[in-house]
Amino acid sequence: MSLSAAEIAAALAGIVGSDAVIADAGRMGPFLNEPRRRFHRSAAAVAVPPDVAAVQAVMRWAHANRVGIVPQGGNTGLVGAQVPLTGDEVILSLARLDRIRSIDAAAGVMTAEAGVILENVHRAAEAAGAMFPLWLASQGSARIGGVLSSNAGGVNVLAYGNARELTMGVEAVLADGRLYNGLNALKKDNTGYDLKDLMVGAEGTLGIITAATLKLHPLPEDYETALVSIASPEAALDLFQLMRQRAGGRLNAFELIPHIGLDIQLRHGMLDADPTAGPSPWYALIEMSRMAGTEPGSLQAALEAAFEESLVADAVLAESLADRTRMWAFREQMSECQSREGASIKHDVSVPVAAIPALIAEGSAAAERLVPGIRPVPFGHMGDGNIHFNFSQPAGADPKDFMAQYDEAVHAAIYAVVLKLGGSVSAEHGIGQLKVELLKQVKDPVALEMMRAIKAALDPRGILNPGKMLG
Amino acid sequence: MSLSAAEIAAALAGIVGSDAVIADAGRMGPFLNEPRRRFHRSAAAVAVPPDVAAVQAVMRWAHANRVGIVPQGGNTGLVGAQVPLTGDEVILSLARLDRIRSIDAAAGVMTAEAGVILENVHRAAEAAGAMFPLWLASQGSARIGGVLSSNAGGVNVLAYGNARELTMGVEAVLADGRLYNGLNALKKDNTGYDLKDLMVGAEGTLGIITAATLKLHPLPEDYETALVSIASPEAALDLFQLMRQRAGGRLNAFELIPHIGLDIQLRHGMLDADPTAGPSPWYALIEMSRMAGTEPGSLQAALEAAFEESLVADAVLAESLADRTRMWAFREQMSECQSREGASIKHDVSVPVAAIPALIAEGSAAAERLVPGIRPVPFGHMGDGNIHFNFSQPAGADPKDFMAQYDEAVHAAIYAVVLKLGGSVSAEHGIGQLKVELLKQVKDPVALEMMRAIKAALDPRGILNPGKMLG
Repeated sequence: MSLSAAEIAAALAGIVGSDAVIADAGRMGPFLNEPRRRFHRSAAAVAVPPDVAAVQAVMRWAHANRVGIVPQGGNTGLVGAQVPLTGDEVILSLARLDRIRSIDAAAGVMTAEAGVILENVHRAAEAAGAMFPLWLASQGSARIGGVLSSNAGGVNVLAYGNARELTMGVEAVLADGRLYNGLNALKKDNTGYDLKDLMVGAEGTLGIITAATLKLHPLPEDYETALVSIASPEAALDLFQLMRQRAGGRLNAFELIPHIGLDIQLRHGMLDADPTAGPSPWYALIEMSRMAGTEPGSLQAALEAAFEESLVADAVLAESLADRTRMWAFREQMSECQSREGASIKHDVSVPVAAIPALIAEGSAAAERLVPGIRPVPFGHMGDGNIHFNFSQPAGADPKDFMAQYDEAVHAAIYAVVLKLGGSVSAEHGIGQLKVELLKQVKDPVALEMMRAIKAALDPRGILNPGKMLG
Repeated sequence: MSLSAAEIAAALAGIVGSDAVIADAGRMGPFLNEPRRRFHRSAAAVAVPPDVAAVQAVMRWAHANRVGIVPQGGNTGLVGAQVPLTGDEVILSLARLDRIRSIDAAAGVMTAEAGVILENVHRAAEAAGAMFPLWLASQGSARIGGVLSSNAGGVNVLAYGNARELTMGVEAVLADGRLYNGLNALKKDNTGYDLKDLMVGAEGTLGIITAATLKLHPLPEDYETALVSIASPEAALDLFQLMRQRAGGRLNAFELIPHIGLDIQLRHGMLDADPTAGPSPWYALIEMSRMAGTEPGSLQAALEAAFEESLVADAVLAESLADRTRMWAFREQMSECQSREGASIKHDVSVPVAAIPALIAEGSAAAERLVPGIRPVPFGHMGDGNIHFNFSQPAGADPKDFMAQYDEAVHAAIYAVVLKLGGSVSAEHGIGQLKVELLKQVKDPVALEMMRAIKAALDPRGILNPGKMLG
């Protein structure tokens, strides 16, 4: 027999205090409305426990009463993992667990609670003379628990890895309220299964991350940044290999941008000046870090070598912070700029790096066959094999008609190309609610069986973020 | 009702062919005798299946008949994971799965089967113009399946990570013979739980790795190597921070060696010349990689900065391959050289990097209190927080008496210090048979419960490497 919403709110108030429970539908908005407004369920209540012990108490109660719990950080996820699926769940916000428990820049370690906003992690690291190199568009509101639960990526994965590689250990509350203490600051620890990496990226379905030990990196002395004109994705791939060969781990960004991105941004006044060397079918934003005590000029020398090999048509090297900022703005406005041109169909996909040219060519051709006049806007983290493969509507088309008519067909066509190339249908954003059915279709069936077995073992009553990821 | 050894051998011969089954005790030696000769059980039989399908067939049969299976690669593990515990198990050797299925140096990916010897992976990568940077003392016989199942480390973890970080995906046969196909070459893939990292380091208790996609790195143009004289572990820590600040990801080794190591090696004629700048309480072997197109001299410049800060007393920079080889021989002979001085008590431990000086000071003092005249020989991967904290017997003592009297007490004393400092009792070598009881004592109890739940979910009959890791 399931509890009513009023009974749930009363029980939660008894556990975390009535001021930490929101049961009024009008006040739940900020916890329910997710960035893309695709999911519209309500919740039985929102609980905002003040500490880890209170999170444990909520889970003990939820386990005993079989109440579904949706863990939530900054509510910035793009696949609906952090909002309810049925409307009967309790949203458990980690926002009040917002302490940085410790920081040791020399040792390269910070322990932060799940509710710490990513930007505050950046600030704390920099104040201590180090860097937490995970930069996301949503970093002003994304919280560490969500960043880890979604294994977030961002623009710096090439050099530093995604959230998984930047996490040394986690503390998590399990489905029945037990506390897993996996916080550690060890680079090597072969004492059992890798539970940390099981929790990271699990979208809150196996446990609720309450704190994590994060890796800090030395602050580079400086960055060298260039915006390079290139003829094709094939040339971009060769250029990427050359850069990797010369920069190794100091290559922190290799971002591909098609000409249409510049065109749209200039047309809509989104850039104060053209950051490129002039019209080109493709651009690459390349950035290397320079460590203390080393000479500047590595990127320039590498570009000169690339010119000699005819991989590069032209290039602009950033000569000031303003130049660098403008180049990055150009890249970072790529997602937003498409909304100025009507509707767009988006795909967050990855393939082996070497298959990027094939992905772009075959995917664009497939979409153009389906939708005459559709405008491919593939851009993003070429160095990670991760392209945000978006398509803007034909100029002048009706946005709603375009989406209604073509959204599903274009998805199917792009995913078919991605899978043929050995790729992933969710490179960065995860599964959540959005891609549950897709995952069932495309994932190795034995992998799905293993995932379900693990889920059942760690959350036998199915109360942790029910229905997400595995359905 | 369990099968007899003869029935087991007959059944296996029916599955993999009689030439692929060894049931004769005399011929099983190479599969039973492990490097340190600590474990002495026999096996019901050894099966050497020719391909993945045969591994699946063996597991289907083992699952149906509840026969314990001990997966084995090169039989180089140091904790008894790869040899039987009861004597009733079947050893399943992956030695014949020795194909490199594909290699693409430009894309930085190789797919190798479990039986490929690590050194052959190195050779194949180099022949293709790339590098697989996992170097172990046992690389001439260790096989990829075992390297991954033990999450091996080695001398290059600082820059490139351990086996886990060098693996992109795995293929594995599960307890009941199903094949998990997790091979991929994706840098980003957020489509579900991280099963790859669950298999890596699981010591064959959750599945049998049959192939893996490995990350290749660009070959550096050159290496810069130095052997540095330092006053103390505290100074070594400061020097490590300085090197990390200046070299970032190009710092590939920072190895600490105590003076006694030089003393022993010179005394026993293990070095053709003294590679150091002269007597010093401690030495650090430091190596940076130099990428194509960059100027040499980074290490020298960094050492000059370190001299100015009085972190370094003296240093020798390798000026030839012979110099570099001798410096590395000095480091790599540290384990062997102790056997020239009688018995030694060994610990493969890690602590947060910043706690290394405390570990060495407190651990040495604790052992010296227990055993007057004991000789601490702490050495190893300081940059990873991973010290091989070994103790040579007092000069002139009887080796057997020393071990019988002090082995357990010294272990207990060192592990107590390690745990107090937030460290791990098995940094590199794993749990296997050797540390099962220790793990139960020191691991977070909730972590152990989670591990047991996962084990039961994926191997409900307990036939995969029974008794290892979790007991």
